[in-house]
Amino acid sequence: MEKLKELIMTKGQNLGGGILKVDGFINHQIDTTLMFDVGQELAKRFKDTGATKVITAEISGIGPALTTGYALGIPVIYARKVRPVTMTGKVYVEVAPSHTKGSDAFLMVSSEFINEDAKLLIIDDFLASGSTIGALARLIEHANASLVGIGAVIEKSFEGGRESLKNLGVPIATLAVISKMTDDLIEVE
Amino acid sequence: MEKLKELIMTKGQNLGGGILKVDGFINHQIDTTLMFDVGQELAKRFKDTGATKVITAEISGIGPALTTGYALGIPVIYARKVRPVTMTGKVYVEVAPSHTKGSDAFLMVSSEFINEDAKLLIIDDFLASGSTIGALARLIEHANASLVGIGAVIEKSFEGGRESLKNLGVPIATLAVISKMTDDLIEVE
Repeated sequence: MEKLKELIMTKGQNLGGGILKVDGFINHQIDTTLMFDVGQELAKRFKDTGATKVITAEISGIGPALTTGYALGIPVIYARKVRPVTMTGKVYVEVAPSHTKGSDAFLMVSSEFINEDAKLLIIDDFLASGSTIGALARLIEHANASLVGIGAVIEKSFEGGRESLKNLGVPIATLAVISKMTDDLIEVE
Repeated sequence: MEKLKELIMTKGQNLGGGILKVDGFINHQIDTTLMFDVGQELAKRFKDTGATKVITAEISGIGPALTTGYALGIPVIYARKVRPVTMTGKVYVEVAPSHTKGSDAFLMVSSEFINEDAKLLIIDDFLASGSTIGALARLIEHANASLVGIGAVIEKSFEGGRESLKNLGVPIATLAVISKMTDDLIEVE
């Protein structure tokens, strides 16, 4: 994913406080060709997990989740943060503190779309502190479904998410790792 | 798009009050193969418009906008409803009343991603009353950019959206038209 790393280096902006702005190609504005390459690459990493569904959290997880699910030939579920009127019946709910939004987020999934046989692959745009992904993993556990892998487009390794998710015992793959963000510096591995 | 029509007939649910639940394949859970076919089909309808970007509104517009943008080889912008900390600088804002959410929504787009040369194709999951699409069209006008077309996956023709958008003078295409929703009935054309 050299193109991804190059875009982070040239168009990513360090807003301070560990916040990386990638609004020009990942969030807000999506580079659609890049997002499809991201999906192909993440699918490659998880092709042997037997995943039957991809799960993500709205909003910015939808892009990479959709392209990964397409590449694997499986559906995508996106956990809702606001319950729409169409969300009827039993709902699984978990709470995840949001870094960029500054407040906690509720993640809701209709029970009709996760059953005990489901093997779920979590895909998100960022792996940072791991709080959103951790909440999705708890949702999966509550539904008695199986978690088979965790993937993200960009990892901020200095926020410790990978470490906090280790005990889940599943493969974790990310396509670009930001090891350091100080002053104007963004270090990509 | 026979598969789309068939899914609406077999899995769509009429919740009353004109609300159609398609959470199993369009929203919440996405049939990824269907969503790619939708993108290919919408791209075909708008291939001669010269569109340089697709624009949509988060959340459920992201799926069809992403696949249409990919098929056309152009980026996608999704208007935000909540301003994230990464949205800095000048922002265009419009308000759109939301049918399924029961309250007004603000639609925000960073001015850095729309300029006067941009030719924008609006893509959304639903064309119902036309209020979200109308707000996106006003955003485009405020940015002095050009609107070149309007596409949606599902149209609820009984809500009059197409009529209200007619004066914009651009082609409008939808892939399945619901002409009537009464009691348990969903009529798809």
